[in-house]
Amino acid sequence: MNIGVFDSGFGGLTVLRALLEQIPQADYMYLGDTARLPYGAKSQATVARYAVSSARFLVEQGADYLVIACNTASALALDAIRDAVRVPVLGVIETGANAALASSKTSDVLVMATAATVESHAYRDACHERGLRAWEKACPLLVPLVEEGWIDHPVTEEVLRIYLNELAAESAAQQLTPDTLVLGCTHYPLLRRNIERAVPATIRVIDSADVTAAQVAAAIPAEALAGPKGDRIRLFYATDSVAKFRRLGAAFLGQPMDEVTLIDLGG
Amino acid sequence: MNIGVFDSGFGGLTVLRALLEQIPQADYMYLGDTARLPYGAKSQATVARYAVSSARFLVEQGADYLVIACNTASALALDAIRDAVRVPVLGVIETGANAALASSKTSDVLVMATAATVESHAYRDACHERGLRAWEKACPLLVPLVEEGWIDHPVTEEVLRIYLNELAAESAAQQLTPDTLVLGCTHYPLLRRNIERAVPATIRVIDSADVTAAQVAAAIPAEALAGPKGDRIRLFYATDSVAKFRRLGAAFLGQPMDEVTLIDLGG
Repeated sequence: MNIGVFDSGFGGLTVLRALLEQIPQADYMYLGDTARLPYGAKSQATVARYAVSSARFLVEQGADYLVIACNTASALALDAIRDAVRVPVLGVIETGANAALASSKTSDVLVMATAATVESHAYRDACHERGLRAWEKACPLLVPLVEEGWIDHPVTEEVLRIYLNELAAESAAQQLTPDTLVLGCTHYPLLRRNIERAVPATIRVIDSADVTAAQVAAAIPAEALAGPKGDRIRLFYATDSVAKFRRLGAAFLGQPMDEVTLIDLGG
Repeated sequence: MNIGVFDSGFGGLTVLRALLEQIPQADYMYLGDTARLPYGAKSQATVARYAVSSARFLVEQGADYLVIACNTASALALDAIRDAVRVPVLGVIETGANAALASSKTSDVLVMATAATVESHAYRDACHERGLRAWEKACPLLVPLVEEGWIDHPVTEEVLRIYLNELAAESAAQQLTPDTLVLGCTHYPLLRRNIERAVPATIRVIDSADVTAAQVAAAIPAEALAGPKGDRIRLFYATDSVAKFRRLGAAFLGQPMDEVTLIDLGG
């Protein structure tokens, strides 16, 4: 079983990290489309074009299961990717919504995500399909703050306070009584502790990286993970500067990165 | 005279705004490569590839003078662009350095810019060629703060305070006595007043948009701007969502935007 993990950049490495913990016996290929990131502020047509070419690349390299570890691509391009490749495709929006369903007793859910993910209302729709009400909030400064490395930093605390206060006020105005907050962007797990400190204790924070790995593990039949023992394959691809990918990527993966291969998807 | 103005996104509209004020009799085409922005955190090879395809497009559309209104593209791709097209090409790094030379009495200059511009040391090198010493500071959070619309906002004031304090400490450690600060990113003119409030009164803030327009005006022979009167051409192109381009662009241009045409440069 060769699992292809795709993200616009480094954030999906938090999903790969959870996959490596939960399904260590699989082979993995990771593609970060770093030359064209971020997807979070771009249009549906552009995101779909980028995501489909990235997914095709992973399948051409031998992936027989795809995890779209990018919320924006999952929100805007999951159908286009499923139309373009012949392997199973799992996106982090549906896994996040499944986890929200399992978590919420009030059936009211909050979502923090990028502007493009929020504008697509993919979380709201996925939650509605599961009988949940969801309120989504675009938090465009969180990705640059994480990439600046300002994790435990007063500016980040203040930005989180502003976003979370607005989110609370907006959801209250909708008469929601949320008990669950989904981190709808793969950068946000690096701020998980900060966010947990900033929300009321009654709200459970859901990290879509963990829940995605658990749902991949449940979806893959045990026999697909059997086979000869030996060195597992861990391949990393990026469409822009490999040096930066390795340097930033290690923080998301939680361990030093192996060799990263630069590829050209055009553009 | 048809002046092509190129930027990775909206920021170059601050340069176009200054050009429209200073050279109203020219025709203009503006291209924002919004599908591939931002350039500021990408590698030299990728930025050069994107910038060359963008510059070629403007020349194919009839531009007979190119202004590279993107600091990152000017820093990383100016030679590549000049090799690729047969019209005069002016970049905002050289115009910023020229303005710094005219402004500075101490010959010590500070520069705020994106990570890629700073890593290229293009400002430092352009200043050295002019007998100036320069200290550059990467300020990666300023672009997302401007795009979030947090112009007069406590978080932005705090981020500016942190960046400017670090810049002052770093340049003091280099024994510099700066009297000039170059805004080395076309988003930063929207924060000009905030920055002027935050620096000592002895430091003059240089907005490369204004100085670029002045240098274009000086470089173009008067006869090139003569010709039949009539409606001047103002064409806008973007590689991603036209709706967002028009909405955000108006803030940078300082007036409502005309029709924007979506184009595909591949990728």
